[in-house]
Amino acid sequence: MTRTFEDIEVGAVHDVGSFEATEAEIGSFAERFDPQPIHVDPASAAESMYDGLIASGWYTASASMRLLVDGFFSDTVSMGSFGVEELRWRTPVRPGDVVSVELEVLDKTESSSREDRGYVENEVRGHNEDGEEVVYWRATNIIGRRE
Amino acid sequence: MTRTFEDIEVGAVHDVGSFEATEAEIGSFAERFDPQPIHVDPASAAESMYDGLIASGWYTASASMRLLVDGFFSDTVSMGSFGVEELRWRTPVRPGDVVSVELEVLDKTESSSREDRGYVENEVRGHNEDGEEVVYWRATNIIGRRE
Repeated sequence: MTRTFEDIEVGAVHDVGSFEATEAEIGSFAERFDPQPIHVDPASAAESMYDGLIASGWYTASASMRLLVDGFFSDTVSMGSFGVEELRWRTPVRPGDVVSVELEVLDKTESSSREDRGYVENEVRGHNEDGEEVVYWRATNIIGRRE
Repeated sequence: MTRTFEDIEVGAVHDVGSFEATEAEIGSFAERFDPQPIHVDPASAAESMYDGLIASGWYTASASMRLLVDGFFSDTVSMGSFGVEELRWRTPVRPGDVVSVELEVLDKTESSSREDRGYVENEVRGHNEDGEEVVYWRATNIIGRRE
């Protein structure tokens, strides 16, 4: 079944699984996209306020996105997004952490100008294995309606 | 010179250069982190409202971050960030687009509780070669003060 705007339930929480933030992937992502010492230099990171290497927040968000695609958007008529509000990295992600991700539907509104779509506001949360929230964002996605 | 909180000028605009969103990198990023058809499947993307492949917004943000690190944060006493507000993907990025990125300092405030740091609010904007804004975000960064 392909999920359309009509099928989306306000208040539903979709568990989309977890990923392991491996040292290798934290490192390769940061080397290309965010080579700050706290992400790529173990010695310097150990002396920082973070007391060791932490993942780039952009890596954590991107790896969470992968789970959202596999576990929600791939079987939804998804037409993109306007962007994200309030992207927060509340607790650092460290090598070996396992991050569990869920999406909660906050609200949905039919488009007033286009019959083929609606707007779905959702909240994404990722928690580490100790139950601490490591990433949070709120976004509005454009979702297709049934023909 | 290492830039500290004191050196940061409200209103200053820092041009941090540009990156090319190559088809290869758009594809490899999306295969791992955002494998939606509009990012990885040329035939399906051609039939979508985007009329062809577009980059994942997470790729555009991450590639912009790299320029911000090289052109600003690497010579700044950067102590991380609380997160991002209002991350927007206003115009799709397509293979071959060249995105120029700038950071504008909006405001700065000394920490009232910790003498070693201050908070800098900034705005990041990326434009394609036609001058269209493709990515925008506002963030607050924690910046070290001089000893």
